[in-house]
Amino acid sequence: MGKVICVGLGPGDPELMSVRADRLIRGAQDVAYFRKAGRAGQARQIVNGMVREDAREHAMEYPVTTEIPLDDPEYNRILSAFYEDWADRLEAMAKDRDVIVLCEGDPFFYGSFMHLHSRLQGRAEVEIVPAITGMSGCWTATDQPITWGDDVLTVLMATLPEDELARRAADTDALIVMKIGRNLPKLKRALETAGRAQDTWLVERGTMPGQKVTRLSETEGPVPYFTIAVIHGNGRRP
Amino acid sequence: MGKVICVGLGPGDPELMSVRADRLIRGAQDVAYFRKAGRAGQARQIVNGMVREDAREHAMEYPVTTEIPLDDPEYNRILSAFYEDWADRLEAMAKDRDVIVLCEGDPFFYGSFMHLHSRLQGRAEVEIVPAITGMSGCWTATDQPITWGDDVLTVLMATLPEDELARRAADTDALIVMKIGRNLPKLKRALETAGRAQDTWLVERGTMPGQKVTRLSETEGPVPYFTIAVIHGNGRRP
Ligand SMILES: C[S@@+](CC[C@H](N)C(=O)[O-])C[C@H]1O[C@@H](n2cnc3c(N)ncnc32)[C@H](O)[C@@H]1O
Ligand SMILES: C[S@@+](CC[C@H](N)C(=O)[O-])C[C@H]1O[C@@H](n2cnc3c(N)ncnc32)[C@H](O)[C@@H]1O
Repeated sequence: MGKVICVGLGPGDPELMSVRADRLIRGAQDVAYFRKAGRAGQARQIVNGMVREDAREHAMEYPVTTEIPLDDPEYNRILSAFYEDWADRLEAMAKDRDVIVLCEGDPFFYGSFMHLHSRLQGRAEVEIVPAITGMSGCWTATDQPITWGDDVLTVLMATLPEDELARRAADTDALIVMKIGRNLPKLKRALETAGRAQDTWLVERGTMPGQKVTRLSETEGPVPYFTIAVIHGNGRRP
Repeated sequence: MGKVICVGLGPGDPELMSVRADRLIRGAQDVAYFRKAGRAGQARQIVNGMVREDAREHAMEYPVTTEIPLDDPEYNRILSAFYEDWADRLEAMAKDRDVIVLCEGDPFFYGSFMHLHSRLQGRAEVEIVPAITGMSGCWTATDQPITWGDDVLTVLMATLPEDELARRAADTDALIVMKIGRNLPKLKRALETAGRAQDTWLVERGTMPGQKVTRLSETEGPVPYFTIAVIHGNGRRP
């Protein structure tokens, strides 16, 4: 009996992987990862040079990404069938061996693996290896602490409605916004409404080659998929 | 010219340290860490067996912890002098060698090192190695994803006033509460007011020896310093 082991890879720099992740990946005979069809895949790229020559690789290619709107029922149907299919395949593999599933950042923090995790319940033994989140990599890149004392930290997805982004940005000490991409103009307006635009940093590809740290006010965009907005807290300081 | 390198150790399990942290600690000649006077210190304990026999160790012992209330000006004065003193000493050491400062979890996420970081600006080169946060270790221990889709995540310190804890707990999808300790009864009342008490998990010593995962409703307390409350988000699931 094997296990499905979902290994968090951290924000991008391979040296920021955990010692356990490093060990599991270097020893793996079966390695699975999500990617967009026709792309190398960020998770697979992070482990370049670490995977054994004789390992079997399983590219789980998303059937759709942004071609269909998120709220179209068809989007849910297609993605759901895709996750079912891969849950079946991982379950079958784990009957007689361990399978490593690679995930960027921390798997349980807005990761894709949870859609497999929920489907594998009771069907295969599943283990999760936590990792450094993208946001930790990004706030470290700004060279300023994200939270102090009893600061409140809020994490938002830029896919939320503009008024909700504005309301929540106005009502927190520290703020992280993820999934920015095409939502950058909406996010800018929301942060201006909240009076926080001047304090916002953008980190593109945190800890990866080509990392860029800029002020939101100086950024026109477009920004890459791997971009996080950071507002630092300012709490009590003895 | 050396550097002050603050190395995040992650939530407690030494295998969850990053490859970079592992390498820096095993090679270090000077290792500094905070601890309560008379205690072994959590950060130092995590690296047991990793520090070189001939390394110089620098225990930075807090002059006060909970003996004086946080809002007493005397508390700030004493802690401030303590941080000034250690900033001076680290600056002096970094003149001719690298000094490793150990920090639990991620240094820039409610860590103590930031009080040295701000004081060392312009005086020594400082580098931060990000790490897995305590909360990542804790939500992984619950074996359920913390956030999905466009869930909002809020991180609160249990030191906040009860009404603020209740208001914010009622207005978020996923919730993390840290620094619980003697604030457990207040936190329980706040989560009941918010209607979230039934969904709350408590993780004591996440990823450390003696890890314990319980429902808040079944926990009388007292709980150890290393305890985090977790409410999972429930976002969109294709
Ligand atoms: C589906 S979420 C996955 C989050 C991941 N599980 C984690 O722990 O960070 C993808 C979003 O994470 C953010 N992200 C993750 N890593 C990043 C990095 N190294 N630099 C910038 N943004 C990153 C981006 O905002 C991106 O849109
Ligand atoms: C001063 S904060 C330090 C946070 C740390 N820098 C981090 O990244 O997690 C201390 C609080 O972190 C939480 N904590 C950190 N690690 C933990 C663990 N392994 N298990 C439970 N709680 C933890 C507790 O709530 C504790 O009161």
